[in-house]
Amino acid sequence: MRKANIVVVGATGAVGQVFLSIMEERRFPVDRLRLCASPRSVGKRLKVNGMEVEVEATTPEIFEGADFAFISVSTNISRQLVPIAARAGALVIDDSSAFRLEPDVPLVVPEINPEDLEHHRGVTAIPNCSTTQMVMALYPLHKASPIKRIIVDTYQAVSGTGTLAMQELREQSRTLLDGGTAKPSVYPHQIAFNVLPHIEPFMEDGYTREEQKMLYETRKIMHAPNIAVSATCVRVPVYMCHSEAVHVEFEHPMSPEEARELLAAFPGVTVIDEPSANRYPLAWQAAGKDDVFVGRIRRDSSNPNGLAMWIVSDNLRKGAALNAIQIAEEVLKRDLLARRRV
Amino acid sequence: MRKANIVVVGATGAVGQVFLSIMEERRFPVDRLRLCASPRSVGKRLKVNGMEVEVEATTPEIFEGADFAFISVSTNISRQLVPIAARAGALVIDDSSAFRLEPDVPLVVPEINPEDLEHHRGVTAIPNCSTTQMVMALYPLHKASPIKRIIVDTYQAVSGTGTLAMQELREQSRTLLDGGTAKPSVYPHQIAFNVLPHIEPFMEDGYTREEQKMLYETRKIMHAPNIAVSATCVRVPVYMCHSEAVHVEFEHPMSPEEARELLAAFPGVTVIDEPSANRYPLAWQAAGKDDVFVGRIRRDSSNPNGLAMWIVSDNLRKGAALNAIQIAEEVLKRDLLARRRV
Repeated sequence: MRKANIVVVGATGAVGQVFLSIMEERRFPVDRLRLCASPRSVGKRLKVNGMEVEVEATTPEIFEGADFAFISVSTNISRQLVPIAARAGALVIDDSSAFRLEPDVPLVVPEINPEDLEHHRGVTAIPNCSTTQMVMALYPLHKASPIKRIIVDTYQAVSGTGTLAMQELREQSRTLLDGGTAKPSVYPHQIAFNVLPHIEPFMEDGYTREEQKMLYETRKIMHAPNIAVSATCVRVPVYMCHSEAVHVEFEHPMSPEEARELLAAFPGVTVIDEPSANRYPLAWQAAGKDDVFVGRIRRDSSNPNGLAMWIVSDNLRKGAALNAIQIAEEVLKRDLLARRRV
Repeated sequence: MRKANIVVVGATGAVGQVFLSIMEERRFPVDRLRLCASPRSVGKRLKVNGMEVEVEATTPEIFEGADFAFISVSTNISRQLVPIAARAGALVIDDSSAFRLEPDVPLVVPEINPEDLEHHRGVTAIPNCSTTQMVMALYPLHKASPIKRIIVDTYQAVSGTGTLAMQELREQSRTLLDGGTAKPSVYPHQIAFNVLPHIEPFMEDGYTREEQKMLYETRKIMHAPNIAVSATCVRVPVYMCHSEAVHVEFEHPMSPEEARELLAAFPGVTVIDEPSANRYPLAWQAAGKDDVFVGRIRRDSSNPNGLAMWIVSDNLRKGAALNAIQIAEEVLKRDLLARRRV
C-alpha cells in the first residue's frame, strides 16, 4: 500500500489526539504528517510514531500535496476549511455535521456502506458519534429484517463536547464534593451529578440538532429513507463512551437469539449479554476499545415485532477517530484517492 | 380533622427521613408518633416537630393502637411486617413492591386514583418512584386521548437505592478524581462517572423487575389494562431526582400545546418547557420540590399519534414519602380509617 501524506486539523483536540494514537496502533501508512490546531496550540510539539511533530497554523497552503485532510473542528470552521482542503487536492474526511447530508458527500461507516466512497468528490464525512454506534448495532439486524422505527434515548459522555467539558465535569464534581456551588461554563447548566436533556441547539420541531442527526444520518448511512426515528439525547456525568437505550421495530418479528447471532457475526460489534452474571455493556469498561458493545437484548414488551437493547461505545474511537481512519484505509484499499481530482 | 397515631418503620432511611420532614411541613395531624428502624439505629433520637423521638425496635406490639403504619423497608421485610401491622389494626401504607399488585391492595397516586382507597382492606401501597412521576405526567393526557403505548428510558438517582448508595457515589467520585480505583459495594459495578442499565434483578423475559413495575403498576394505577410499556431503567451518578425520556403513543394525535395545557392544569405537575431559553426540567433543580416537572414536549417524529417528553421529579418526595402522606391525608378526608377493621 502506498504511503499517504496527511494533514490533521484539530490535532490537539479530544478527537485529534485519539486519531493520532489510533494511526500509530494500526500502523497507518503515513509518509508526511502535518498537524494543525487553533492559534494557541501552534508551536506545540506532539509525539507521533516516535517523532516530534510541530503544530502549525491552519493555512490554505498546508493542504498542498496532502492525500488526506482529517478535520475535527467545530461545524462553523469545517464549513470554511473543508472546501479549501478539497480544492488543494486533499481527500477530506470531516468529523463535523457541516456536509454530512450533502448528496455528493459520502457519509460512511466502513462496516456498513463502504461502497458509498466510490462516489466521493473530494469530501467524505464521518457520522455523529451517537449515530455511528447505533447503526453499527442495527444494520446487521436491518439486513435480516427491515427496520421500520427506532426509539433511542442516549446517555452521552462529556468527551463528545471536548477536553474543556471533561475538565468542567472534573472541576464541578470536586467543587460539589467539597460543598461548593457549580459554575457552569461549557454547558448551560451544572453537569456534575446531573443530567442534561440538551445536546446541540434546539430546532423548530422541538428536537435538538443532535436528535435530528440520529434520524437523517441513520437514513443516509443505511440507505433506508423511510426509517422513522425519535431520539432524546442526554448528556450524563460520564467522561468517556456513549450509552444508548434503543427500542427497535422490525417489519417481521426477530428473536433475541437471532439478533445476538447476527450481531456477534458482524465486524466491530461485540455482544455482552449475560444479565444473570451482571454482564452488560458499561461505559467505563468500553473506554479505549474499538468495538461497539451490545447487550440487554430482549423482546420489546410493547411490540411483537420489536426488540429492546443497550448499546455502548467509545465516542472518540468508533464514534469519531477510528471511523475516520477506517475510511482512509478503505479509500486506499479501493484506490479511490485519484477520484478526488475528478 | 382528627389526629392520628402513626408508626414509621424505616424512620432513619432515606425515605423515612424525608417522610418526617414532609409531615412537619404539611402539618399532618399527628397524635402519637413512634419511630422504628433496624437494630443498629434503635435508641437514636430523632427530632420531629420540635420534639425528640427515640427510635424503637420493630416489634409486633408497636403497631397496637396505630392508625397508620408507614413502612419503608426492603421488599422482604415488608412482606413480613405488613400483615403484622395490618392485623394490629393499623392502616398500612407500604413503600415496597411486595403487595402493590395484589388485587385487594389499592396502589394509589392521590391525584389519579384516590377512589381506589375506598376499597382498602388494611393495606395500601405507593407505586415505585419511577412509575409515579411517569403516570403523573401521562394520566392527564390519557384522560383526554387514551394512551396505547409508552416507551420510557430512565436516568435514576442513587437515593432510590438508599443512603449507602449516596455515600458510595460520593466516595467513588472522590477516589476516581484522586486517581484511585473504585470499589463497588452497593452496586455490582462502579456508579461514579458511569451509568448502569441494571436496577433490581433480571427477570425471565430479559427486563428487570424495575422495568416490569413500570408496565404493571402503570396499568393498575391508570385502570388501563391494555397499555403497552417498554422500559429501560438506568442508574446514573446523580444523588437526587429521577429523569425520564418518554415516547408515548395515543389513540388519536395530540398537539404539544394541548399536552402543555392539560399538564399545567393538573395538580402536582409543573411544565418547564422553554428550550430556546435553556429551560427544561433538571434533576438537581427538582431536588426537594414536591412537583413532577415536565418539559421538552414535542411531536414524536416517528409517529403521527405520538409525543416525546422529559419528566423529572424528586424520587424521595413525590416518588415515595410525599405520595405516602398524601394517601394518609386522603384516607382521613374520606374517613376511611374505620374500613381497616372490616
